[in-house]
Amino acid sequence: MTHTEVVTFLVAISIMLFFARFLGEMFSKMRQPAIIGEIIAGILLGPTIFGNLLPEFQGMLFPQTGNVSLVLNGIVQLAVIMLLIVSGLEVNLVLIAKQGKTAVYTSVLGVILPFVLGFIPFYFFSEYFGAQHGDTLIFALFMGTALSISALPVIARTLMDMNLLKSEIGVIIIASAIVNDLFGWIFFSVIIGMITSGGSTNFLTQIGGIFLFLALLYFIGKPLSDRLVPRLQEKFSYPGSILSYIFIAGLVAAAMTEAAGIHAIFGAFMAGVVIGDSSHLKEETREIIHQFVTNIFAPLFFISIGLKVDFFAHFDPFLTMIVLVLGIVGKVAGCGIGARLGGMSMSESIAIGFGMNSRGAMEIILGLLALQAGLINEAVFVALVVLALATSLISAPIMSYFLRKVKKYENLAEIFDPELVIFTGEHGREAVLRELVAKLEQRVAANGESGFSTDKFYKTMAAPVLIPGLALPHAKLPVKRPWLAISISDGGYYYEEESEEPVNITVLLVSPEDKPELHLHLLAEIASVFAEENAVERIKALKDAQLIREFFTEKL
Amino acid sequence: MTHTEVVTFLVAISIMLFFARFLGEMFSKMRQPAIIGEIIAGILLGPTIFGNLLPEFQGMLFPQTGNVSLVLNGIVQLAVIMLLIVSGLEVNLVLIAKQGKTAVYTSVLGVILPFVLGFIPFYFFSEYFGAQHGDTLIFALFMGTALSISALPVIARTLMDMNLLKSEIGVIIIASAIVNDLFGWIFFSVIIGMITSGGSTNFLTQIGGIFLFLALLYFIGKPLSDRLVPRLQEKFSYPGSILSYIFIAGLVAAAMTEAAGIHAIFGAFMAGVVIGDSSHLKEETREIIHQFVTNIFAPLFFISIGLKVDFFAHFDPFLTMIVLVLGIVGKVAGCGIGARLGGMSMSESIAIGFGMNSRGAMEIILGLLALQAGLINEAVFVALVVLALATSLISAPIMSYFLRKVKKYENLAEIFDPELVIFTGEHGREAVLRELVAKLEQRVAANGESGFSTDKFYKTMAAPVLIPGLALPHAKLPVKRPWLAISISDGGYYYEEESEEPVNITVLLVSPEDKPELHLHLLAEIASVFAEENAVERIKALKDAQLIREFFTEKL
Repeated sequence: MTHTEVVTFLVAISIMLFFARFLGEMFSKMRQPAIIGEIIAGILLGPTIFGNLLPEFQGMLFPQTGNVSLVLNGIVQLAVIMLLIVSGLEVNLVLIAKQGKTAVYTSVLGVILPFVLGFIPFYFFSEYFGAQHGDTLIFALFMGTALSISALPVIARTLMDMNLLKSEIGVIIIASAIVNDLFGWIFFSVIIGMITSGGSTNFLTQIGGIFLFLALLYFIGKPLSDRLVPRLQEKFSYPGSILSYIFIAGLVAAAMTEAAGIHAIFGAFMAGVVIGDSSHLKEETREIIHQFVTNIFAPLFFISIGLKVDFFAHFDPFLTMIVLVLGIVGKVAGCGIGARLGGMSMSESIAIGFGMNSRGAMEIILGLLALQAGLINEAVFVALVVLALATSLISAPIMSYFLRKVKKYENLAEIFDPELVIFTGEHGREAVLRELVAKLEQRVAANGESGFSTDKFYKTMAAPVLIPGLALPHAKLPVKRPWLAISISDGGYYYEEESEEPVNITVLLVSPEDKPELHLHLLAEIASVFAEENAVERIKALKDAQLIREFFTEKL
Repeated sequence: MTHTEVVTFLVAISIMLFFARFLGEMFSKMRQPAIIGEIIAGILLGPTIFGNLLPEFQGMLFPQTGNVSLVLNGIVQLAVIMLLIVSGLEVNLVLIAKQGKTAVYTSVLGVILPFVLGFIPFYFFSEYFGAQHGDTLIFALFMGTALSISALPVIARTLMDMNLLKSEIGVIIIASAIVNDLFGWIFFSVIIGMITSGGSTNFLTQIGGIFLFLALLYFIGKPLSDRLVPRLQEKFSYPGSILSYIFIAGLVAAAMTEAAGIHAIFGAFMAGVVIGDSSHLKEETREIIHQFVTNIFAPLFFISIGLKVDFFAHFDPFLTMIVLVLGIVGKVAGCGIGARLGGMSMSESIAIGFGMNSRGAMEIILGLLALQAGLINEAVFVALVVLALATSLISAPIMSYFLRKVKKYENLAEIFDPELVIFTGEHGREAVLRELVAKLEQRVAANGESGFSTDKFYKTMAAPVLIPGLALPHAKLPVKRPWLAISISDGGYYYEEESEEPVNITVLLVSPEDKPELHLHLLAEIASVFAEENAVERIKALKDAQLIREFFTEKL
């Protein structure tokens, strides 16, 4: 580079880093993902705004051809590889195993539905949407993938900001996003291979190549890496040797996949996954890489997106609307239905759907590659960036709204269910209990839970008569939330043969077996309800489920 | 970049990073600076070895022209700027103030002597040494600067490995290296300005530009930065916002100095100095940047040196010998004499000279720029790299050797000085003391210390008669090491008028006032010497300074 080119390069990169980070920090302050600010910074500085106002000056600062542009692109390319290594490091495979069923349902449906919704219209109307490559199938496959891919880094960041990262919902979303990303990347790599080879590569060869790479990684790379990490930390400089190792491994994997026609970033990502999975990798090392990459290199990539395309000139409202609707409906519905099938409540499922809906990093990288390869035109690219921005923006507020509706089932008021109040005509202990348990079993099953059954209940229940007139059979079972069922008997029954007073109220409590302290807490709450004077008599007199609920909850 | 170029780029950068770090770690294990391994890795992979064995394959992996080479060079350029920012952050201005005199003497002479030694032969025999630019003055100025510049990062690393970084000698070396670097960089920038402008820039304009930049930095940049750092940490993400700020500031300063014709790296270095000087900058932030840059980017720069030049083909033994001799003699003698004038002992001064002698980062960067600008030829460049490698290699072992000889002055054996033993003929207390103190004052002054004077001694001394026959006047004064002086009087004198027995031995102890525990320790050692039976009589009988030394030290 000449002297003038070096100056241009330094000025360009300082301005890019400053604006990207400044707007990124502003969006962080508004509890939005920083990536939105970074992309918007690019739109402001790129041909869309700055270039429209002062085209010559903009072209001077950010030249589109020549040495400066080439070097900047090279650095951005390295930045993307670094970003993918870091994203891979954040993947926690153990999480998936733990949240298995729900995560798999959520992610599989969350991939399939938007993929199908994206594939169909773009396959049948590909010319209308400006498929440039001529190969309708690749174009439609690309659109399906672009709509189905999620953005683990953006999602993780949003959950972190909402203080949900370690909650049950957070863990399910992260695990689903990981599975989603793994699927998405395999699709992505196949399509990229088809694009770069101009469609000449056989689909099966491509898939074969990916699975060969994954097999090599799993059977050779992973055991090797798991042994290497602790040895490096022990025998060589720390954290220096590990930092270098992570980057060298990422770059080697990137070179391998790129050479095999799968694309560099798939290798970088998978190398990150494998290394991040080692239990020996220290949090401090992860932190150094994470901080450096997210604060220096990732912003350079995200701002560079806006520098390439004029978002106004290529904005196609109809196309954008279609992409937005298909992308959001497909992802939210797919993930939401998956989560519901996986046993989550309605509100939780919707929250999970919107949590998974954030796009960002990956989708834009994919779009950029397709744009460069001539597979899509600028209008489609702009629509995809808008989808990324819009979905990331709405994710946090909508999740908050639905999670506010989600009961945590942590006190009597939240678990009291008027449907489970029976005014019984039975008079024997067995009959009253059988009726109550049957009702509960039916109700739990209707809620999509399978953790409760009459058999299990009878096997584990304890049934003290707490105060005269009240029986309290209770058990800890593999249910997901506590349940409260109440039977009120006017005449009463004798719980034990030697009992002196009849029981009028039977309160049945079932709590999740993995939350023993919650069980105790709920028993204590029940006890405090019946600690009121003449509680049994007063409840018996109410004759109405809603009034009984008030009695149970007014004090709490 | 095309698909093939991307693959070449990824393969090249992975191999560079792997070999640089691997050899760097090997040298670290041998207690040598990692930079030596990194440079040697480049010589192995470059045209010197690999390129001579398999020229076509080497050219394929590390192309010298085309897009890949351009992008790699751009990344290396960014790496150098990052390295200089980090080097600047390591500069601690407070240190210089504390070690003022010694550091200034050491560094000023350590710059002037090698500069003059470098300037003269290369000015008068410039054609012989292949000055290519035709401008003899610039060539000779460059050689002077190249020989006088030091390498703060290499020096700091060596001291750290030797566990000397926080010792007095370590602090003096670091402070001197900082002053040396600041001088060196100003020279450097002037010369670079003259090279890049083809000698058309006026020398004074150039100097003026540098001082204008430094003034701007000091009066506007520094106060602004000192306010910004705590605010960023408080109001924005931590450490993200600070990390980005450091790089943005470094890049902006780099762009400014480059645009002004002084060269980007001077700005990057000074930005690092200013930010690193802020008391609000946290150690953690420094650590993240330091680890990332020294383990990922700096190695890429150092290995790239060897990739550019064939070290065998351009190796000129005579030229290299001259550069080595002038460089080492000039630096070791200059710094050594300076340290001696600054009050250090002979062994310490030699150790400081060799400690300051390490070259590395800066000299090579300067050489590379001169090579690219056509000011020097490959042979001179190779000689400079050899100087850097050789001086860095010998630094640690030679320092260890001389520091082993350096007395720490921490016990009687080390402070006992036969020259300070007087067999006096005086008989009065005043006369004996006056004689002893005068002798000591002379001896301390001859050692280059100014902390002792008769007046100060009389003002602060305490003078107990410890056992019959022994007087022990002692004081804590601003001296650098403890001193012991002994007067032996055959006939004896009466210390106090009411004394019953005469004093035959007067032991005078002066210790540094900042080491009170050392003073107590030495007093205890003296007491234990005189705790022997008839110690006073036996010492009085010896009549020989060396025998008295043995008596004083045999038990210790």
